[in-house]
Amino acid sequence: MKLFLPILLSSAALAQTPASSNVLGSEYPKLFPDGHAMFLITAPQARSVAVELMGTGAPPFTMSVDDKGVWTVTTPVIAPGFHYYAIVIDGVRTNDPGSQTFFGYARETSGIDVPDPSATFYEVRNVPHGEVRVLWYTAKTTGQTRRIFVYVPPGYDQDLKRRYPVLYLQHGSGENERGWTLQGCANFIADNLLAEKNAQPFLIVMENGYGVGRSNEAFEKIVVDDLVPFIDAKFRTEANARGRAMAGLSMGGGQALAIAAAHPETFASVASLSGAARSFDVEKFKRPLRLFWIGCGTEDRLFEGSKKIHEQLTAAKITHEWWQAEGTHEWQTWRKHFYDLAQKLFR
Amino acid sequence: MKLFLPILLSSAALAQTPASSNVLGSEYPKLFPDGHAMFLITAPQARSVAVELMGTGAPPFTMSVDDKGVWTVTTPVIAPGFHYYAIVIDGVRTNDPGSQTFFGYARETSGIDVPDPSATFYEVRNVPHGEVRVLWYTAKTTGQTRRIFVYVPPGYDQDLKRRYPVLYLQHGSGENERGWTLQGCANFIADNLLAEKNAQPFLIVMENGYGVGRSNEAFEKIVVDDLVPFIDAKFRTEANARGRAMAGLSMGGGQALAIAAAHPETFASVASLSGAARSFDVEKFKRPLRLFWIGCGTEDRLFEGSKKIHEQLTAAKITHEWWQAEGTHEWQTWRKHFYDLAQKLFR
Repeated sequence: MKLFLPILLSSAALAQTPASSNVLGSEYPKLFPDGHAMFLITAPQARSVAVELMGTGAPPFTMSVDDKGVWTVTTPVIAPGFHYYAIVIDGVRTNDPGSQTFFGYARETSGIDVPDPSATFYEVRNVPHGEVRVLWYTAKTTGQTRRIFVYVPPGYDQDLKRRYPVLYLQHGSGENERGWTLQGCANFIADNLLAEKNAQPFLIVMENGYGVGRSNEAFEKIVVDDLVPFIDAKFRTEANARGRAMAGLSMGGGQALAIAAAHPETFASVASLSGAARSFDVEKFKRPLRLFWIGCGTEDRLFEGSKKIHEQLTAAKITHEWWQAEGTHEWQTWRKHFYDLAQKLFR
Repeated sequence: MKLFLPILLSSAALAQTPASSNVLGSEYPKLFPDGHAMFLITAPQARSVAVELMGTGAPPFTMSVDDKGVWTVTTPVIAPGFHYYAIVIDGVRTNDPGSQTFFGYARETSGIDVPDPSATFYEVRNVPHGEVRVLWYTAKTTGQTRRIFVYVPPGYDQDLKRRYPVLYLQHGSGENERGWTLQGCANFIADNLLAEKNAQPFLIVMENGYGVGRSNEAFEKIVVDDLVPFIDAKFRTEANARGRAMAGLSMGGGQALAIAAAHPETFASVASLSGAARSFDVEKFKRPLRLFWIGCGTEDRLFEGSKKIHEQLTAAKITHEWWQAEGTHEWQTWRKHFYDLAQKLFR
C-alpha cells in the first residue's frame, strides 16, 4: 500500500530515467525530460570530482559531496545525442561505473545518449533487424589478423541469389571499428530505413582506420588489396566499382576521399562526413561517379573545409550531394549524415 | 646506426611487451616474460594509487609516484590467464586508460591477459575463422529487444544443406553476453579445434543471463520460449533436444543445470563450468542424455559444490564427464573447461 511515495515526489522527479547508454541496471546517470542530466559517483576519499562532457565545449561540471562521500551534479540542459564523458577524480579522467564504454579518445570512454525528441530515426524499433557480424581476416599488407564489423541487412540469408552493394564506412580519430554501430546506431538506422523502404539494402563494412599501431599509413593498401577482396569472396556482393562506396567521418572522411580519389577502379561512390581532408584534388573526381556525398554541421570546426570542397565540386560542375545543417563534431551529426547518405546510396 | 641502445638495455627489459588486452598502441600494462607485470598511470593530484587484481586473492599493489605525477608498480608474477583489474585512485576503483574494457563486476572493467606458455589452444592462429554474429530479437516473455552473440563456424555459409547442433553458453554473475568471446576466446578455441578436426562444428549462442534489470528470474522462460525458437528459425540447426546443449559458468552453470533439468524436451546435453547451483536434483537427469559435463578448478571456492554433484551422478550411475584440475574461479579455468567440453559435445 504505497500511499505516500508518489504524492511526495514531484512529477519531474518521477520522470527521471536512467540513460539508455548505462550498463544494465544502473540508475545513474539519469536524464530529466527536458535534457538536464544527473551524475553520481561514490568517492569518499576524493578531494575534487567533476563531470567533463567532451565534444560539447562546456567546462567540467563540479560535483558536490555529501557526508557519505557520494558526489552528485545536475548539469544544465545537454544537447540531444551521444556525448563522450569522463568523471574527473582528483584530476584524472576516469570512467563512470554506471556507463557502458565506447571507444573514443583512443581509450574506452563513458558515454551518455540524450534522447532527441525530433529524431527517432535511430531508435530500436520492432522491425526486422539486420545482423552485425564480427569477422577476422588476414591482411597480407601487414601480416595482421584484423577484426571487422559487417552489417548484413535483414533477408540476406533468405534471398540467396541476390547480390548486395557494399558501403565501406570508417570511424574518426581515436575511435575504432565498433563506433558506427555502438555510438552511431548505423545498424538500427539501416533497419528502420529498410522497413520503410526508404533505402536500398547494402552491406556495411567497418574496419579499424589504423594500419599498424596508431599509424594509418598502411590503411589504404589494406582496404584495396586485402579488405575488398576478402569481402567480395566472403559475401554475395556486387563486386565492381559501381557496387562499392567509400565513406567515413572526420579522419575517416579524409581517408575516404583519398582512397576513392586514388582508386576509381574500386569505388564509384564516396562520402565525407565532417571529413578531415589533408588535401583534395577535384581533378580526381572528374570521372563517372555514382554518388559524391559531402556534409558537415555548421558548428563543426571542420565546416569551412567541407564547404570549400563543396564549392570546388560545384565550380567543376561535379554532381554531388551537400548536407549543411546545425550540428557539432559529434555522433548526433554523424547519425543524421548516415541517415541521409543511406537513402541516397546505390540508387 | 643504433649502436649503443641494445647494449645498454638488459634482455629482460627488451623482452617486455604490451599486454594483448591493451587498447591499440598502448604500451602499458607491460608484461615481462616471466609473468611480472608493470602498470603505469599519470595522476599528479592523486594521493594514493594502487592496482587491484580481482579474482586473484592478492591485496592491491601500491604504486609509487615520480616527480611528474606518473605512478608505476611492477607486480610479483601473475598467474597466467585473464584477470579483471582496477586502478584504485584515492579509494575509487577506476579503469586503466591503457586497457580494453571487459564486462565484469556489473561494470566495464579493465583486464590483463597474461600468456600461458603451456596453453596455446586459445591463441589467434592463421586458420579459418568463424564469425561472431550480433543479433537482436524480440522476447515475448518480457517484451524486450534483446542482443545475442552467435558463433557460426567456418563453412556455415558454404555447405548450405548442412544443419548444426547448438550450444547455449552462459556467462557468470556480473558479466554479459560478450564475455565468452572477449574474455573466454570461445570463438578462437572453436576455430582451432575445428582446424585440427578435434571437435564437431556447432553454433554457440550467447545470451545475457539477466531477464529484467539485474534479476534473472525470467531467464529460463526467455531461453525456452523465445530464444530457442528464434535460433531454430534463424539458423540451420538440428532442431531437437539431441541437437542442443545448455551450459554456463558460475551463475550460468547453475542456470544451465536448472534449465536442462526442467526441459528434457529441449536439451539432451548439459554442462556446468564452476557452476553455482542453488539446488541439484539428480532424479531429473535419470533420462537419456547425450552429454553431462561438469568441472571445477580445485582452488575454486565452488569446488566442493561441483564435486558433490559429480559424486551424486556417480552414485546414481549417470554417465558424465568430470573435469578436476588446478584452477581458480577465473576465465583461464573456463577457457580450459570450454576446450575440453567442445571436444566432447555432439559426438
